[in-house]
Amino acid sequence: MPLPSSCTQPPPKPSALHGGRARDRQQVLTKPPGSLGDLERVAIELAALQGCDTPTLERVHISVFAGDHGVCEEGISAFPQAVTAQMIANFAGGGAAISVMARELGAELEVINLGTVGEVPELPGVLHQVIAPSTENLAQKDALTANQLQNALNAGDYASQRAADNRAQLFIGGDMGIGNTTSAAALACALLDHRPQDLVGPGTGLDARGVSHKARVVQTALDRHGDNRDPLAVLASLGGFEIAALAGATLGCAARGVPVLVDGFIVSVAALVATHIQPGVRDWLLFSHQSAEPGHQSVLKALDAQPLLNLGMRLGEGSGAAVAVPLLRTACALHNQMATFADAGVSDKPGA
Amino acid sequence: MPLPSSCTQPPPKPSALHGGRARDRQQVLTKPPGSLGDLERVAIELAALQGCDTPTLERVHISVFAGDHGVCEEGISAFPQAVTAQMIANFAGGGAAISVMARELGAELEVINLGTVGEVPELPGVLHQVIAPSTENLAQKDALTANQLQNALNAGDYASQRAADNRAQLFIGGDMGIGNTTSAAALACALLDHRPQDLVGPGTGLDARGVSHKARVVQTALDRHGDNRDPLAVLASLGGFEIAALAGATLGCAARGVPVLVDGFIVSVAALVATHIQPGVRDWLLFSHQSAEPGHQSVLKALDAQPLLNLGMRLGEGSGAAVAVPLLRTACALHNQMATFADAGVSDKPGA
Repeated sequence: MPLPSSCTQPPPKPSALHGGRARDRQQVLTKPPGSLGDLERVAIELAALQGCDTPTLERVHISVFAGDHGVCEEGISAFPQAVTAQMIANFAGGGAAISVMARELGAELEVINLGTVGEVPELPGVLHQVIAPSTENLAQKDALTANQLQNALNAGDYASQRAADNRAQLFIGGDMGIGNTTSAAALACALLDHRPQDLVGPGTGLDARGVSHKARVVQTALDRHGDNRDPLAVLASLGGFEIAALAGATLGCAARGVPVLVDGFIVSVAALVATHIQPGVRDWLLFSHQSAEPGHQSVLKALDAQPLLNLGMRLGEGSGAAVAVPLLRTACALHNQMATFADAGVSDKPGA
Repeated sequence: MPLPSSCTQPPPKPSALHGGRARDRQQVLTKPPGSLGDLERVAIELAALQGCDTPTLERVHISVFAGDHGVCEEGISAFPQAVTAQMIANFAGGGAAISVMARELGAELEVINLGTVGEVPELPGVLHQVIAPSTENLAQKDALTANQLQNALNAGDYASQRAADNRAQLFIGGDMGIGNTTSAAALACALLDHRPQDLVGPGTGLDARGVSHKARVVQTALDRHGDNRDPLAVLASLGGFEIAALAGATLGCAARGVPVLVDGFIVSVAALVATHIQPGVRDWLLFSHQSAEPGHQSVLKALDAQPLLNLGMRLGEGSGAAVAVPLLRTACALHNQMATFADAGVSDKPGA
């Protein structure tokens, strides 16, 4: 299976025309200019991304990618590996955080099972695109084969195609995979030349000793990997099925002109990989929240990203992005519905 | 007219029983404990405030208080005084930021006109409880008479009674009054022993020279006022009609067991005054956002408050609080609807 074309062709540019018109409109709405802060910024960005004067977010597509990590055998997670498969069932059953949020938002939610050690039965809302029961242990060998990498990137690309087919106005990618903060930290270290101790954190809840051990495992993986900085090679060596799929979905959304609202640490690392493959992808990214996972800050900085929220969240699943959707909707409603100074007969300058 | 009883009697306490049960429940929902960050905290707080196991925020009551400030004759605002009355019409017409937000939230919105220099016609959704066309110039004399102060406190108390009558699950107070950041800065300086240069900011958009002049005006007012720290005396001397009404509404909501979601600088100063009148009021306050107005940070610190959002907003009207309502609703939905580890058959500990 070949790489998706979004890996090899740059994405389109957002509409500077609509962005400029939105910026002008924000200046004449009945408020001191700039007083809505980030809500003005995101309304302008969404107008440019959607190429329209009245951006809206009625149709939100959420794809949660799940997969297991061979590196779990190094004892780097506070939760057992069986949880990945168990949580897929919880997503489908409506009891997970992202399930509740998708329902509240009226968003489309799909779960893509890319391979788990635990068994996953047929479940409503779960697509089975199994690559293998697990990646290999990235501390010892490449996590994915070249073929597995292409399958994972394509799984993400298909999700972006489904989002585009559903005329989604916003795409949210989510992750589930016990061990994936280890993989994400390794990827970010390799791409950004950081040290493991700068990017490794507690994940689902390691103590200080556990974090130190995890950093040593990442260092072992980086030593094994060497200094190849090609993003696809780094992704195969240190990635995970769900992280590669998230990178593929990000590339695919940008190629198809679907704005992406980026979640926390895992999804941001996938977005970082995507921008290393195609820098133009960055134009299509909005950032939702600053995770409590300490490595997230460096990744956001590398992406020149200013997330809207900092709520101390560190769950994954796309949950931090989902929390931010109502803010984006509020920004759109204000942009579209507020009166102008002229319409409302309100003075817009001193002495008027 | 006497003071509202909420000024002289301490409010009830929130339900420690329901707060404790909510804290226990957050530990067994299908997520790493603490991984929903502030969303866990506010769900627990709302359970305690509403005295129930499944907090909800269907009924939100927004009262925007408007009034003019005599201190405008000192040239302390970037916008002309006529804007206060003009914006009341814009609130009623549905074109102001808070009007759009209230509509999107399905919240009750009322505007209370406490007195403006510009004429305000009869308008739907506007209550006329006019105290005077404007306060006095606080740089030269007490802004409110004792009788005006009681009227303003009662206007706020009536709003809290209407909210309670409507079985509101959350109260948001908003402000409109050209010149009111000058009054709020003076109040905070007097109550917290801060210097004007620490708390005075650009308001609707002063330049650096304007801010310096505004700080000198506040210093003149503080010198005139002297060292009386009685909160009602400070409020009469340096307050505004809408700020006093907001303090009254805060006291009234606490007395009636209605949780208050505090907006930005102006409303936080009113909440500060309320806690100086009745310290128990603090238990009933949730904090929505950190304003870009620089004095807000000191006021939040004095209230030991950690707002949910920091979006660079500085509009007033209750708009920062309104933006945070969907986050609180999300927190409630997660708390009420997520599966527990036991329900979902998900392992909740290492090696399980």
